[in-house]
Amino acid sequence: MDVVKIGFVKLGNIGISRIADLLLDERADREDIEVRVLGTGAKMSPESAPDTARLLDWDPDVVMVLSPNAALPGPTKAREMVKEKGKPCIVISDAPAMKAKDKLKEDGFGYIIIPGDPMIGARREFLDPVEMSIFNVDVLSVLSITGVVKLVQDEIDRVIEEIKAGGEVKLPQIVATAEKAVARAGFSNPYAKAKAIAAYSMAEKVAELDVKGCFMMKDPEAYVPIVAAAHELIAEAAKLAKEAREIEKYTDSLVRMPHARKGDILKKTKLMEKPSA
Amino acid sequence: MDVVKIGFVKLGNIGISRIADLLLDERADREDIEVRVLGTGAKMSPESAPDTARLLDWDPDVVMVLSPNAALPGPTKAREMVKEKGKPCIVISDAPAMKAKDKLKEDGFGYIIIPGDPMIGARREFLDPVEMSIFNVDVLSVLSITGVVKLVQDEIDRVIEEIKAGGEVKLPQIVATAEKAVARAGFSNPYAKAKAIAAYSMAEKVAELDVKGCFMMKDPEAYVPIVAAAHELIAEAAKLAKEAREIEKYTDSLVRMPHARKGDILKKTKLMEKPSA
Amino acid sequence: MDVVKIGFVKLGNIGISRIADLLLDERADREDIEVRVLGTGAKMSPESAPDTARLLDWDPDVVMVLSPNAALPGPTKAREMVKEKGKPCIVISDAPAMKAKDKLKEDGFGYIIIPGDPMIGARREFLDPVEMSIFNVDVLSVLSITGVVKLVQDEIDRVIEEIKAGGEVKLPQIVATAEKAVARAGFSNPYAKAKAIAAYSMAEKVAELDVKGCFMMKDPEAYVPIVAAAHELIAEAAKLAKEAREIEKYTDSLVRMPHARKGDILKKTKLMEKPSA
Amino acid sequence: MDVVKIGFVKLGNIGISRIADLLLDERADREDIEVRVLGTGAKMSPESAPDTARLLDWDPDVVMVLSPNAALPGPTKAREMVKEKGKPCIVISDAPAMKAKDKLKEDGFGYIIIPGDPMIGARREFLDPVEMSIFNVDVLSVLSITGVVKLVQDEIDRVIEEIKAGGEVKLPQIVATAEKAVARAGFSNPYAKAKAIAAYSMAEKVAELDVKGCFMMKDPEAYVPIVAAAHELIAEAAKLAKEAREIEKYTDSLVRMPHARKGDILKKTKLMEKPSA
Amino acid sequence: MDVVKIGFVKLGNIGISRIADLLLDERADREDIEVRVLGTGAKMSPESAPDTARLLDWDPDVVMVLSPNAALPGPTKAREMVKEKGKPCIVISDAPAMKAKDKLKEDGFGYIIIPGDPMIGARREFLDPVEMSIFNVDVLSVLSITGVVKLVQDEIDRVIEEIKAGGEVKLPQIVATAEKAVARAGFSNPYAKAKAIAAYSMAEKVAELDVKGCFMMKDPEAYVPIVAAAHELIAEAAKLAKEAREIEKYTDSLVRMPHARKGDILKKTKLMEKPSA
Amino acid sequence: MDVVKIGFVKLGNIGISRIADLLLDERADREDIEVRVLGTGAKMSPESAPDTARLLDWDPDVVMVLSPNAALPGPTKAREMVKEKGKPCIVISDAPAMKAKDKLKEDGFGYIIIPGDPMIGARREFLDPVEMSIFNVDVLSVLSITGVVKLVQDEIDRVIEEIKAGGEVKLPQIVATAEKAVARAGFSNPYAKAKAIAAYSMAEKVAELDVKGCFMMKDPEAYVPIVAAAHELIAEAAKLAKEAREIEKYTDSLVRMPHARKGDILKKTKLMEKPSA
Repeated sequence: MDVVKIGFVKLGNIGISRIADLLLDERADREDIEVRVLGTGAKMSPESAPDTARLLDWDPDVVMVLSPNAALPGPTKAREMVKEKGKPCIVISDAPAMKAKDKLKEDGFGYIIIPGDPMIGARREFLDPVEMSIFNVDVLSVLSITGVVKLVQDEIDRVIEEIKAGGEVKLPQIVATAEKAVARAGFSNPYAKAKAIAAYSMAEKVAELDVKGCFMMKDPEAYVPIVAAAHELIAEAAKLAKEAREIEKYTDSLVRMPHARKGDILKKTKLMEKPSA
Repeated sequence: MDVVKIGFVKLGNIGISRIADLLLDERADREDIEVRVLGTGAKMSPESAPDTARLLDWDPDVVMVLSPNAALPGPTKAREMVKEKGKPCIVISDAPAMKAKDKLKEDGFGYIIIPGDPMIGARREFLDPVEMSIFNVDVLSVLSITGVVKLVQDEIDRVIEEIKAGGEVKLPQIVATAEKAVARAGFSNPYAKAKAIAAYSMAEKVAELDVKGCFMMKDPEAYVPIVAAAHELIAEAAKLAKEAREIEKYTDSLVRMPHARKGDILKKTKLMEKPSA
Repeated sequence: MDVVKIGFVKLGNIGISRIADLLLDERADREDIEVRVLGTGAKMSPESAPDTARLLDWDPDVVMVLSPNAALPGPTKAREMVKEKGKPCIVISDAPAMKAKDKLKEDGFGYIIIPGDPMIGARREFLDPVEMSIFNVDVLSVLSITGVVKLVQDEIDRVIEEIKAGGEVKLPQIVATAEKAVARAGFSNPYAKAKAIAAYSMAEKVAELDVKGCFMMKDPEAYVPIVAAAHELIAEAAKLAKEAREIEKYTDSLVRMPHARKGDILKKTKLMEKPSA
Repeated sequence: MDVVKIGFVKLGNIGISRIADLLLDERADREDIEVRVLGTGAKMSPESAPDTARLLDWDPDVVMVLSPNAALPGPTKAREMVKEKGKPCIVISDAPAMKAKDKLKEDGFGYIIIPGDPMIGARREFLDPVEMSIFNVDVLSVLSITGVVKLVQDEIDRVIEEIKAGGEVKLPQIVATAEKAVARAGFSNPYAKAKAIAAYSMAEKVAELDVKGCFMMKDPEAYVPIVAAAHELIAEAAKLAKEAREIEKYTDSLVRMPHARKGDILKKTKLMEKPSA
Repeated sequence: MDVVKIGFVKLGNIGISRIADLLLDERADREDIEVRVLGTGAKMSPESAPDTARLLDWDPDVVMVLSPNAALPGPTKAREMVKEKGKPCIVISDAPAMKAKDKLKEDGFGYIIIPGDPMIGARREFLDPVEMSIFNVDVLSVLSITGVVKLVQDEIDRVIEEIKAGGEVKLPQIVATAEKAVARAGFSNPYAKAKAIAAYSMAEKVAELDVKGCFMMKDPEAYVPIVAAAHELIAEAAKLAKEAREIEKYTDSLVRMPHARKGDILKKTKLMEKPSA
Repeated sequence: MDVVKIGFVKLGNIGISRIADLLLDERADREDIEVRVLGTGAKMSPESAPDTARLLDWDPDVVMVLSPNAALPGPTKAREMVKEKGKPCIVISDAPAMKAKDKLKEDGFGYIIIPGDPMIGARREFLDPVEMSIFNVDVLSVLSITGVVKLVQDEIDRVIEEIKAGGEVKLPQIVATAEKAVARAGFSNPYAKAKAIAAYSMAEKVAELDVKGCFMMKDPEAYVPIVAAAHELIAEAAKLAKEAREIEKYTDSLVRMPHARKGDILKKTKLMEKPSA
């Protein structure tokens, strides 16, 4: 197979959705893949899920279905449509998807569940488009630096290689905990790594606070401070994650793993050195 | 018209693409719109542009075409497909699109050109998926806080209202300079506003450095420090933008303008007050 | 009663223990109370608990028993000794004390349980006296600013007043959650309050990580990063708490509530104004 | 001698008092010592000093007497009571204790005088329990990181070893200046060390300002800004000290010297390595 | 008198020398004064002092003589030359000039002595041109924000006005302590003012450390850490001063007092308002 | 030639003027040079330029003429006076001097043009003496750390050596771009170098904004935010430059190149080592 066709279905939003489709080809020069995205904006109603068909018509070789809470009817419908077409399907979702984990495994879906990709503080008194955008920015900072972004890319790249090789395709079935994520990030400084774990843990706490503020409290006097606290917390998590990355720079130890044109992954550590296979 | 159907075509990537489709419905509860996204990942080749047809088949009421350098063949093809269908089309692009501005106006396209949405430091020795993701995070921080995100949302919302009203639709034709963007951000503190202008200006300088490092230099010894400097600079711009937003919090003056269910835009200033029309 | 005699028994250590005995008389000029402390250093074995007798011999009017996990035999023994003497007793402890809460209530003890006073990362590969000291510093920063310190002082002061009044003494029975603590801190800026809640929540997450790293993992390769992350996290929580306090300064709104000589609590807000009753 | 019994008498408060009794056994698992503390809260009147007897009844092998200004009658009385019992006694105090230094030496007392443990801004218009707690936090940050905490622990541990050995006990007689303290902190980075000296020097300046604001000025219009400045200064000193410690982390050079169960002091430098004797 | 001629003689360097000649005419459009500077670079030997004649030949109406330690022969010679010409002379110097204060008063010189303008860490192992430049930058940050720069400008402007009025000229005789300087800075926030006092106090401590490191220690092993600490300390002082200024911005309360063309001093507070007399 | 006489003529102000005369002799102990400065304060009118004669009378061996926009009549007059005396002359100026570059070369002048030495936000509604002083501080921070200060010193020192050697004197003809400046700064960490380039680039952007705000806009409502943004931007540039320098400290790699008494330049890297030739 010359070119692997990779489809992303995005139903509603989680942090990783904001970047997933770019991760495989950061400089837009990779010759061995083609990417298409079909999204439904902020909503993920069961009515919008069948639109997945628009992507399936393109005949992708593998499909990622990204959404909050993959246990809900919308994403369930979408991944079943992919399965019916006989395509490998990887579900990428957040903590509430843990409920669906066993069923996903049973049904042969791949999955990457990210407990550190927290829900937003979705209260009208608090959330507007700008606050929403910044929340996504902060979540994505944490995911990028603590290794989640790398883990997602690694796993999809591995699947692509397997598709190219033409043999069996082994889909990832991973709960991307702090430890698993950070292991992928390639920190050389152990304190940077500890800070990254802390940042990821903060993102988990954000999820807790936002769930509480959005679903378990009724009075705006009570829940506005909680969702505001959650957003302050993710902002701090983002700062701490960035600080972790900075530490790697201080000794010129920041690992970079760019894609080559043919899709193989290169590696370098010192900023002024060349990446190599 | 009960529900306005809004399409986003994303060809390749600019910073604003990462969030545009979520801006109209931050809490996913808006009843008057439906959103679909069709994207081509990192690449924007002329071959992928015709895929825009997949979105047009959905029969959207208005289509945004987002891409770097809207003057290139890919995005040109895409917007012409939209035009052929007789749909209003708004081009959203970055500084190099200035070349296409007069033609866009002439041909009746809407456009929002964002000089503060800089190209990335696209050098293999420097850019990997994680660095790419962080760059987008930093750009989006600047765009979110300095008013660009608000300007884009305002203009699309205005067009939606006009479509709902059934009269003439006036497409935006705007170069989103620092001054124009910041005017939308609603800063109450003039130093916060000054810092936001500074942050936006830094993003413009990033564009300059990355163009130089990617297109005008040949030796990695020379260009790696330049693209690295550009990424350090956008990180500082993001920090400064965030500091500007923090200042508004210090006097509880941060404006929030959430959407109501019917799509009208509410407003509030004090954190503990209710938003109102 | 002219002078109320207040006893503090400290068995082992929690963050609040480091400051509790000073909270009632910050300038050492209060005429209506006398304070004594009996402590057992870092250890809280059942063998050391009976030393509580040394404090009881002094015939205090009320006794605070501070320790980690008040459900353990040591602190249990100590508070029972206080009870046998017929003295009012307030247990001050951390999250694991939740197990003892119902029994404490039943037996008529007062209690203040502080889920945001996390256990330390007690691993030999990680913890030395300096790290221990800094951890306590960071925890105490969070407790001081987020309202826990104020809550503890308020409640003991209230009990003192009741003892002075000679009527019934109502002992506090409080789980000092983020919301309850922050309510005492008197923030005027709602974002400062949100940051304080976030800081307190981070301290709760520290507790989770340290319990995991100390009790649920066996391999130093695994647990050292976790306890190190916990300490990085509490350091960030301390920074965020301090930032919350700084915000109150920006509008000269930091509430100060000093004790007068007779023990009544004064209040002021602007730095240059006088406190008054 | 199997177990050395170590007593701490705390009369009034200085920064080091807040942590001294925990320094010898940071993980509460040391088998060769037993610790007891007797404190008098914020006050250090001569009337409370005789309470030292409660600790002496426990028959300690060595007693630390901690207080501000050891030249005052209260602490003088306390240490003389210890001496009468024939127990080795180490006075730990702040800058005003310099007046008593020669007499202490003459009378065979050990002493550790800490000029960088500043008095608080004890003005009713300024100081309340929360401000007091934060001041202690900041002082203790400086003492922990700049080597004072290590020096105090080292010296007491040395005395314990000598008591265990059964020979002569040589009490420390040290003025813990910036240079002497920092030498104990084990910095590997010379700039971290310079920052630590600077932080310690700032703490000395705090002492100057607070003495001026508390004893040499009469008008609140004049002294409130001075004591407020002193507290801002110690907050900066704490931040700088923490920055010094962070620098050691950047090259994974932070020395840790935990106690083993038997009380011997281990050492490690890299975070992921084991401590060893 | 239409135009007042103002001379600055700079012998060697102190921080305020770096900016003094620009303070009277920040936008270079003032019509009522003419300024000339005569400097001798880093050195202030008695041999270079007579060069003051070059400035006196210009026939200035008032002369400022700026130097470290005004008690030394060089600056003494220079000011006596000014006096001989019958010109009013204001000595501007640092802490060591306190020795000359009474004599200056007696001899009718004006003076502004600045204890917060510290000597540099003038050790060859430490100081190079870049470090020297940064030290001056940091000192000048402190002087600018804490009110020293304003005090110097105020006093010279007052003298200019008196010269223009043609009556008696009253030369300033001021020791610019923290309190006196800060009073000129016009802070509206009392915590900003407290931080400014703290920053100034830090600069005084820098002077102490540098005197010790340059004159009282002999071994590089001992003095290099001390002068390095002094430079770290002034860097922190500069940061804190800047933070104080930022606080004024948070409530849009930063006072600005520009010169009008005729030399009168205008005033404004809100950034967007006009300055007025 | 035993002692080289070096003259500095300062007409009006640019950032480098504030420090240039001290760069050759940071500890004021160099025996091979003598320095004199003649300045005209903030103004650089053609009428003040002839005052250059006062410096020329001193018979300097080389003269630096520092001013904004060296193409203007004032500085042109000054350098021609130097040339007429047959003295080597180096023009040091900012970006607008680029217009004069070819002519300078043709006429045999040396020059160092510094695009990163931006004009100030010279608007009466914005600029007062304190703001002016801080702007200079921030510019000088950038110039000091990014290598401009080193480049200027290097080049003058080279010319001094050539004058001492008695042969031909080759005057520098350099546009001190980010790359050229940073090359002189001797960074060992490539990220520190990238941050320095970013800081310098920010200073260039400041120049753009200030030119726009001072010369191209007419309404204070429009230009005050722009010049305020420019000053916020230079403050950020200064912070980033300082951060770059800090990074060098983290690995004890900060290069120091002090002058020896005879004027030769020594070098050291580790803080505790001796400089050597």
